[in-house]
Amino acid sequence: MIYLDNSATTKPYREVLESFNKVSTEYFGNPSSLHGLGGNAEKLLSQAREQIAKLLKVQTKEILFTSGGTESNNIAIKGTALMYRGRGRHIITTEIEHPSVKESMEQLRDLGFQITYIPVDSDGTVSVTDIEKAISEETILVSVMHVNNETGSIQPIKEIGQLIKKYSKILFHVDYVQGIGKVPLHFHDCQIDLCTISGHKFHGLKGTGALFIRQGVKISPLFSGGGQEWRQRSGTENVAGIVAMAKALRLTLQRQENSVAEMRKIKDCIRIGLEKIDGIKIHTPVLHCAPHIINFSIHDFKAEVFVHALEEKGIYVSTTSACSSKIKKPSSTLLAMGVPEEEALSSIRVSLSYENTMEEATQFIESVNEAVTRLRKVMN
Amino acid sequence: MIYLDNSATTKPYREVLESFNKVSTEYFGNPSSLHGLGGNAEKLLSQAREQIAKLLKVQTKEILFTSGGTESNNIAIKGTALMYRGRGRHIITTEIEHPSVKESMEQLRDLGFQITYIPVDSDGTVSVTDIEKAISEETILVSVMHVNNETGSIQPIKEIGQLIKKYSKILFHVDYVQGIGKVPLHFHDCQIDLCTISGHKFHGLKGTGALFIRQGVKISPLFSGGGQEWRQRSGTENVAGIVAMAKALRLTLQRQENSVAEMRKIKDCIRIGLEKIDGIKIHTPVLHCAPHIINFSIHDFKAEVFVHALEEKGIYVSTTSACSSKIKKPSSTLLAMGVPEEEALSSIRVSLSYENTMEEATQFIESVNEAVTRLRKVMN
Ligand SMILES: Cc1ncc(COP(=O)(O)O)c(C=O)c1O
Ligand SMILES: Cc1ncc(COP(=O)(O)O)c(C=O)c1O
Repeated sequence: MIYLDNSATTKPYREVLESFNKVSTEYFGNPSSLHGLGGNAEKLLSQAREQIAKLLKVQTKEILFTSGGTESNNIAIKGTALMYRGRGRHIITTEIEHPSVKESMEQLRDLGFQITYIPVDSDGTVSVTDIEKAISEETILVSVMHVNNETGSIQPIKEIGQLIKKYSKILFHVDYVQGIGKVPLHFHDCQIDLCTISGHKFHGLKGTGALFIRQGVKISPLFSGGGQEWRQRSGTENVAGIVAMAKALRLTLQRQENSVAEMRKIKDCIRIGLEKIDGIKIHTPVLHCAPHIINFSIHDFKAEVFVHALEEKGIYVSTTSACSSKIKKPSSTLLAMGVPEEEALSSIRVSLSYENTMEEATQFIESVNEAVTRLRKVMN
Repeated sequence: MIYLDNSATTKPYREVLESFNKVSTEYFGNPSSLHGLGGNAEKLLSQAREQIAKLLKVQTKEILFTSGGTESNNIAIKGTALMYRGRGRHIITTEIEHPSVKESMEQLRDLGFQITYIPVDSDGTVSVTDIEKAISEETILVSVMHVNNETGSIQPIKEIGQLIKKYSKILFHVDYVQGIGKVPLHFHDCQIDLCTISGHKFHGLKGTGALFIRQGVKISPLFSGGGQEWRQRSGTENVAGIVAMAKALRLTLQRQENSVAEMRKIKDCIRIGLEKIDGIKIHTPVLHCAPHIINFSIHDFKAEVFVHALEEKGIYVSTTSACSSKIKKPSSTLLAMGVPEEEALSSIRVSLSYENTMEEATQFIESVNEAVTRLRKVMN
């Protein structure tokens, strides 16, 4: 099996599952319980929070644990919009955000907020000037993703942060789900107020995630209740999942340090291989892109047909993002980049993890070649 | 170790963790992915949903997976209030609900809803007549817990359901977190529209839960995004956790069938033992109570002191509910029952699982006796 769909989800590291099991059996207490079993669980929770904060170079109090990227994005957007609605009711975002950002915005629109979607250029990048032009007296939040989950393009987060810093009442949220462990981002240097990560995208477990909330920023909680997580996210904490996520993050950042150059080489090899194949068009830009995602269309074939052709060879890739893959609509990111609808409907995403090898890349290119040849024959 | 704090959280069954591990390693695909790895994960997800629906005697489409009891309660209350706010803005609940219900209500009050809290009698039970009297033209939701998490008292859910059925625009939500696996509840027979369960309370894993939503009832989602869970709860599903919860539920309901009588015997033995000890007052009623919870006060001792005294003997009990245990406030359930504040501050909760034995009960009573004697000596 050659798994090249790591932007949809990753396989948990063995060590991550081991931590999960250990905590679930030996430290199963409720961290809110007064007795020692509760205390031990709470200690693990605090340690995991400290570890993650340190890895992300932020303060311990700035980390909120959630059930995943979708929850973190929803809290960041709806939680701040509801908290600061007295300041204004205008929000700025981009045309290429993940559905968990876009749909949160649409829900806020129904509640009377005004949303501005900033377009992207043909490389999938927003312009800082466009964002500046969109800012009004009413603007309270700007939400821009870091690495796009469909094309891998990287947004100018630092420049946007510098811009927003000039406006004291505007918060800056970044969806870092695809970037973490691949492309470094210093939250404080980039003036980020809220930042989303998701455990299962870096070999952690599904159902785990975190939200960075800069000290001083408040949110209206989505979950009220027992007051866990500084009253910002109630509910018995998934201690084992959180400890597992801390381990996954540590291991991933180690791999990033040692292997990101190799990852980029593998991606370049795939890119070069694809460029040689007749009828293939690559949508991922050459510059300002993450080391693990490459998106391309194959002329004449619907994406599903090609996904299944590769699957027969034991290779797993995806059409668009996983959560949109069953709705047969063209990728909105590609459309926003100006890719024609027909071409967007035949787009394939390859996404790497540090587990993938150069041999796999070579085999992938061979298989694409074979599949294209075979499918073209069938069609004639 | 004698663990008697099962209402705070339970130890996951070995088989439950085994399922979790198997799914996490062998079926790690994203259920939304188009390829076979995604398809396999999706199949497991559907099977778990079918299994849980069958065990709860409801339809597959009526089960929504969440991250726990707190999330389910928040979705049930805020999700319906926001969805049906056009019909009216009055909600009825009780004075003894879990914080995840109470705080959701308070958040809605800030948004302009009117909340009526129904009192309880000295047994901790609400009166159906009181609920009937509170109903107005504006009422859209009644939320009443099944088994109370602090005293084990059971509310007259069936009678309340019959009452509410007469009002077509009122929805009925039940927090069944403490009752499941101990006290049967037929959702459809009781005219329940929404019902909350939480995996870690029945030997499943933390971070897993479900909400029953009767077919036809709509909610405004808390998480918007990729459209998972019938567009009611977006986010990549915690497939392994969900499969584990299905297994935990099946095992627990088997234990219920075979061992609930034994569990009640163990509790009765504890009750009788406690009644013989000078200065102990039992708050859990004799009738209409769950087989696993017993709540009592020990005259003269603060609850924390006693929790720690028992812990020295390897016995784990709790003060009030876990999530309130660190705030040194008297239990609001006991206060609502008319228990004096002083007495409420010295209350202890013992909560059983099917893993507890009669020997443990005897040892517990002996230890309470010893601790009381020793602490009384120290105090004089
Ligand atoms: C950019 C981006 N944001 C958010 C999410 C949502 O994360 P999760 O799957 O943990 O809900 C994803 C993944 O689906 C993503 O790729
Ligand atoms: C009655 C009741 N409802 C809701 C909850 C919340 O469930 P969870 O811990 O899964 O958030 C609890 C447990 O804390 C409870 O006892």
